[in-house]
Amino acid sequence: MSGEFERIARLFAPLASAEGLGLTDDAAIFVPPEGTDLVITVDQMVESIHFLADDPANSVARKLLRRNLSDIAAMGATPLHYLLTTALRAETPESWLECFVTGLAEDQQLFNISLIGGDSTSTIGPISLSVTMFGTVARGAAWHRRGARIGDAVFVTGTIGDAALGLAAAHGKVLDPNGFLAVRRLLPEPRVGLHIHHLVHACIDVSDGLIQDLGHICRQSDCGALIEAAAVPQSEAARRAGDQWLLTRLTGGDDYELLFAAPAEVEIMLRAAAAPVSITRIGYFVEGPPEVVVLDNAGKPLPITRGGWSHF
Amino acid sequence: MSGEFERIARLFAPLASAEGLGLTDDAAIFVPPEGTDLVITVDQMVESIHFLADDPANSVARKLLRRNLSDIAAMGATPLHYLLTTALRAETPESWLECFVTGLAEDQQLFNISLIGGDSTSTIGPISLSVTMFGTVARGAAWHRRGARIGDAVFVTGTIGDAALGLAAAHGKVLDPNGFLAVRRLLPEPRVGLHIHHLVHACIDVSDGLIQDLGHICRQSDCGALIEAAAVPQSEAARRAGDQWLLTRLTGGDDYELLFAAPAEVEIMLRAAAAPVSITRIGYFVEGPPEVVVLDNAGKPLPITRGGWSHF
Repeated sequence: MSGEFERIARLFAPLASAEGLGLTDDAAIFVPPEGTDLVITVDQMVESIHFLADDPANSVARKLLRRNLSDIAAMGATPLHYLLTTALRAETPESWLECFVTGLAEDQQLFNISLIGGDSTSTIGPISLSVTMFGTVARGAAWHRRGARIGDAVFVTGTIGDAALGLAAAHGKVLDPNGFLAVRRLLPEPRVGLHIHHLVHACIDVSDGLIQDLGHICRQSDCGALIEAAAVPQSEAARRAGDQWLLTRLTGGDDYELLFAAPAEVEIMLRAAAAPVSITRIGYFVEGPPEVVVLDNAGKPLPITRGGWSHF
Repeated sequence: MSGEFERIARLFAPLASAEGLGLTDDAAIFVPPEGTDLVITVDQMVESIHFLADDPANSVARKLLRRNLSDIAAMGATPLHYLLTTALRAETPESWLECFVTGLAEDQQLFNISLIGGDSTSTIGPISLSVTMFGTVARGAAWHRRGARIGDAVFVTGTIGDAALGLAAAHGKVLDPNGFLAVRRLLPEPRVGLHIHHLVHACIDVSDGLIQDLGHICRQSDCGALIEAAAVPQSEAARRAGDQWLLTRLTGGDDYELLFAAPAEVEIMLRAAAAPVSITRIGYFVEGPPEVVVLDNAGKPLPITRGGWSHF
């Protein structure tokens, strides 16, 4: 067998479920369960853009899966299968790919998903990877970005801003003595499997930054949002980094926490249903243009625009 | 809106069907028709590997779709929807992307498919593109590479080797006065919609070269294949290129014709059902190891290995 087919048989076929037809056919065949909607997403990672050349290959694989798992989670769906594309350089060592595959295997088991197909090629540029992921959700029950109602509370899972601080730490700008921020950057926790389905009106995952992603819900739901900076949950490591990183935390990407709209009165039910994942109420959806206003401790709007501090 | 969202709204949202949720959500939602199996494939194209930097962007888009359409056709399925990833350089001109999108639009209409999602990012290397495509087929009726029976005839659609000769022409090694070979390389014809479903035992599309791809059917079907070099259909342009290109034609990739197993006695029915697409019988599946033997005009085996001429 030529190198490509030998690699597929040795490294990838063991990751494949029956739907992948042994990775020996032109396509995968999948029969979604009766009464479900199929939820489909694709996300790519390019070396030097989405990961650093010396990031461990297994954590690159896991982050690639987890970015997609997070999109599936943001639709309220259960992940099932994925397709993988890889474009590697001729000089990419075989050990890199082997390490990459161990990362896939580990997260496949953790999240109960399987490989069903893909495409591998060579490139003369940066390593380029993509995953297309499939999940299912009861028919008509998927969450959308639209659906937030005026008066709904804004909730987030986990803590916000750690991944951006992890990148700052990788560049030596923030202390990260126990590596917590690095782990949050390299290995986000997609919030799949929370049993809060019936309580949520609209949802997105925080991939582009809290303010920008909250703005997406506002635009799709035709409302504004008002949040309190002090209410945005931060990790102990982020707290230690200090208040000068507030903007980074609010606008940094890659957290992969869920950001959603639900009635304030179901907060206790949400917390009980999502445990041990923490859920924090950070503000409200309000009448008005699709803008996000962030209030400081004195209740004054911070001069933040979606992309950063306002120049005014 | 930031550049990425503005581009999505302006260029890609007009290509999207309802399943894509306006390309404003975290994922697409698709409900496959009752009684069908979902067929899923992914294929990528990297600049300098799969296309040349000065290939027209609209034809790159169309070839990207067509490579995937061909995989769907090789499973006997009907294409429906696709997801697109793009990784462009900061200096890739906006006009390149606009031209790329016109190619997508043209083939969407031609093949009755729609965009339902995707991911766009930047890269510092070659342009990198991928399409994940979905099709449906009556439950249990998909073609596989396994299934060829000893005694079945080997059939191909269209003509074989034009794309490889088109690449040779692009490098000035073959004459292509009317541009026929260039068109065959840039704009393959995926063989979707042939009404030969009930007659076919196994199928693959010719993407890696006739001999290699026929070998895939042999390995999955546990048989050998015997074909006649003179029977392999060639275009008038390929005939003019001359016999010294025989190996290139038999081993060159990118033809995207269908290569399939069916009983010899249904040849007339196949031709009638597939018209106006031509179907040619080129040999037989035989008992033995999963090897492809090519006979010359005298009935002697040509010293061809899967990858090229044998060194023996």
